[in-house]
Amino acid sequence: MVWWFKCRKKVKWLIVLFRDEITDLLYNVPYLKCVTTFFYEMFGTKRCFYGMILTKVSQLPHTNTAKRKSAYLWPMLTISQRGQDMPPSPIRKLVPFAEAAKKKGIKVYHLNIGQPDIETPPAILDAVKHADIKVLEYSHSAGNESYRRKLVEYYKRVGIEVSHDQIMITTGGSEAILFGFFTCLNPGDEVIIPEPFYANYNGFACTAGVKVVPITSHIENGFALPPIDAFEKVITPRTRGIVVCNPNNPTGYLYSREEMEALRDICIRHDLYLFSDEAYREFCYDGEYISAMQLPGLEQHVVLMDTISKRYSACGARIGTFVTKNKAVYDAAMKFAQARLSPPGLAQIMGEAAVDLPDHYFDAPKAEYQARRDLLVSRLNAMEDVFCPNPGGAFYAIARLPIDDADTFCQWLLESFSYNGQTVMLAPATGFYGTPGLGKNEVRLAYVLNLDAINGAMDCLEKALQEYPGRVAGKTKSAATAQG
Amino acid sequence: MVWWFKCRKKVKWLIVLFRDEITDLLYNVPYLKCVTTFFYEMFGTKRCFYGMILTKVSQLPHTNTAKRKSAYLWPMLTISQRGQDMPPSPIRKLVPFAEAAKKKGIKVYHLNIGQPDIETPPAILDAVKHADIKVLEYSHSAGNESYRRKLVEYYKRVGIEVSHDQIMITTGGSEAILFGFFTCLNPGDEVIIPEPFYANYNGFACTAGVKVVPITSHIENGFALPPIDAFEKVITPRTRGIVVCNPNNPTGYLYSREEMEALRDICIRHDLYLFSDEAYREFCYDGEYISAMQLPGLEQHVVLMDTISKRYSACGARIGTFVTKNKAVYDAAMKFAQARLSPPGLAQIMGEAAVDLPDHYFDAPKAEYQARRDLLVSRLNAMEDVFCPNPGGAFYAIARLPIDDADTFCQWLLESFSYNGQTVMLAPATGFYGTPGLGKNEVRLAYVLNLDAINGAMDCLEKALQEYPGRVAGKTKSAATAQG
Repeated sequence: MVWWFKCRKKVKWLIVLFRDEITDLLYNVPYLKCVTTFFYEMFGTKRCFYGMILTKVSQLPHTNTAKRKSAYLWPMLTISQRGQDMPPSPIRKLVPFAEAAKKKGIKVYHLNIGQPDIETPPAILDAVKHADIKVLEYSHSAGNESYRRKLVEYYKRVGIEVSHDQIMITTGGSEAILFGFFTCLNPGDEVIIPEPFYANYNGFACTAGVKVVPITSHIENGFALPPIDAFEKVITPRTRGIVVCNPNNPTGYLYSREEMEALRDICIRHDLYLFSDEAYREFCYDGEYISAMQLPGLEQHVVLMDTISKRYSACGARIGTFVTKNKAVYDAAMKFAQARLSPPGLAQIMGEAAVDLPDHYFDAPKAEYQARRDLLVSRLNAMEDVFCPNPGGAFYAIARLPIDDADTFCQWLLESFSYNGQTVMLAPATGFYGTPGLGKNEVRLAYVLNLDAINGAMDCLEKALQEYPGRVAGKTKSAATAQG
Repeated sequence: MVWWFKCRKKVKWLIVLFRDEITDLLYNVPYLKCVTTFFYEMFGTKRCFYGMILTKVSQLPHTNTAKRKSAYLWPMLTISQRGQDMPPSPIRKLVPFAEAAKKKGIKVYHLNIGQPDIETPPAILDAVKHADIKVLEYSHSAGNESYRRKLVEYYKRVGIEVSHDQIMITTGGSEAILFGFFTCLNPGDEVIIPEPFYANYNGFACTAGVKVVPITSHIENGFALPPIDAFEKVITPRTRGIVVCNPNNPTGYLYSREEMEALRDICIRHDLYLFSDEAYREFCYDGEYISAMQLPGLEQHVVLMDTISKRYSACGARIGTFVTKNKAVYDAAMKFAQARLSPPGLAQIMGEAAVDLPDHYFDAPKAEYQARRDLLVSRLNAMEDVFCPNPGGAFYAIARLPIDDADTFCQWLLESFSYNGQTVMLAPATGFYGTPGLGKNEVRLAYVLNLDAINGAMDCLEKALQEYPGRVAGKTKSAATAQG
């Protein structure tokens, strides 16, 4: 709805009042605040004027003079600014096309999401089945003490020394990230994240009112940490932290000791928090795994965000951990934990049982993922004009394809392509970059399917790249330069 | 640490830089922002100056002139403003005293928290035990569709007509409240809540940057809804919603149809969201239960926040629901749900099984709670100078005691009192009021223990009120007036 009204003698203002059809209009909160106050003082009404835009009439195509008197009498229900800004999941936006393909009888290989096919260890599910529960009570807000004490053992085994009162059990790694942001960052504060990065960091940053400042890592060197200069360039008075995911989702990159030490130095120099997402710790294939918690001098700076989701193929459990040696941070995070009462009870039993899995438990899934990686990466690099660096960890790879636009291509794979009744679903890399325009010829592949399925998916992809109408001449592998 | 430095010719400024010892100092963010910018521009440094206070030297007792040059070279790690503002749980602050009492061998009757002793229905725990799970995968971000379709049946049975795509499964009722606030409210927006209210609303409001505006309900009329005038008086241009808990925690008050309709009218008149917390729906003992979802004309305004915690004595499951017919609100909330991926998987199986419990399932727990309420309220009112209105629902009551200070009294009960080796833990009502100073002679009692235990607890309380050194002359019951 569009109304106008004359508010000062020389300027005509246009007031746009909307209930639902907000989308196309600039919605600027600080500006609206002034407007709200202005109306409040001018008309003495206590009604809320959120959901208005003021602009000069001359700049807008249509006005409606008839109802101008009621312009200031129409408050409305609106969605919050963060509710509007909140990004929809870039990974899930292709789902309707996948569903349509399946309805047509096409088999879809899902390499698009990090949902492993590895069996959840039956022993940890059995722990829940055999638990003797009369009343399923709230647990301690930090999680069951018995579980936290068990986790001290687990972390010790992976080279991280912490005590049970530095560990908080969270509802998935997601809540650990949220607690970290809520506790350490004010609205308007900035966190630096090497891109491409886990897309949901955007959502958590938006929830907390935090600004994500991306610095670009490049496919040519396998998405290594950007040079320190790149960090220094973007540090401002509002910079409060760096987020690092190691081994990385979506690139699979495993940060070296030198890179982790470079991060440490910059965090100490600028007194920045280091939010370290180590969900894929157990899946490192080449090189040494260094936890942020192992960096001397950084004890007060590190907030570790962890989860059992990928480690034990238990994504649906929603059990993560928030770990920090910074007592002030822990204590403040505890208040957010108390407000939501406790983490999931049944799944904590699973998590606790998982710590008792034998040491060799990870051998099989790790060997399986490594074999999948080797197959996936060699199949990709064998395709004409395709380049995929060899990821050192996690179960993701990003490949550069000879295509015009990854979003179009991934949709086309589901909508217009099949090969022997099969196709493949990939995640366009655009969703993992913060800088608009990057990743347009890259896709992320999660090697969460078995070797046969990966071969099947690669057969599809190879054929698809030959048929795709938006194919462009690719760089040859040897000519790959640092142009990103 | 305290430094000073001369910044303009005529005024000496003192800069207080702190790392940990912030507590006593005024910490004003908008002010600091100016300071940060000022330093940034003045010194060209990109370091962060959060954590400073500028004030005139003359107003402070100590200065240290020696290190003034380094004053502007000391950025720091600090806790976010919301991390500092976040209220600690008022219910749990007495826990250390209860633990100490237990260590002395004293039996503590826990009437302080809403953790029922009623057995979780074995059938719903069995559903998890018998579930055939190979891989515990992420569920749909809105929760399993099969569960949401089941919930349509459940809501229909309690007189609420919704479809499965208006229901979102959340991690406890807590997350439903957070999603409601995040989606509908901007930082700085106001929600009106009749006090005393569920203390964690404060925490969720703080997380979302929202201001809670309390309006007082009074013990004399059993904590009925304050008159409409009281709402109208506090409505400002920033008012965006009303939160109502029905039946109420902590008062046990059950809102009448007239009261719900009054709320409807005010929400429509001012276009306010009505956030309706209906966690205790099944436990109404006197009078008719009216859901906010049943109010005609309010379809777009209502966000229902619900949970299985109390209904099936399954607090540790962490399964709630967020329900709204407002599609824009649902769609925006869905983006927050997608960022955190999915609600707990195992407990969704429980929740789904719970819908299939026989209709008569609630008969036994409801009769049990009603018997407890009757005993508790009659025991309380039989004590000299004690007044407890008869709550119509939930499993809480607020009583007025002849005491000087509820916080002191509740601590004294644990620290300095016992009767036959027993004492009782209560929640001071001060934690449930938003207005400072209210509730000082009131306590909340949760009747979550069996009749014998309630009798034991009341014996303790009666004795304690005779012995308590801070006892004051109480109002007689008949002289109770509307002074609150």
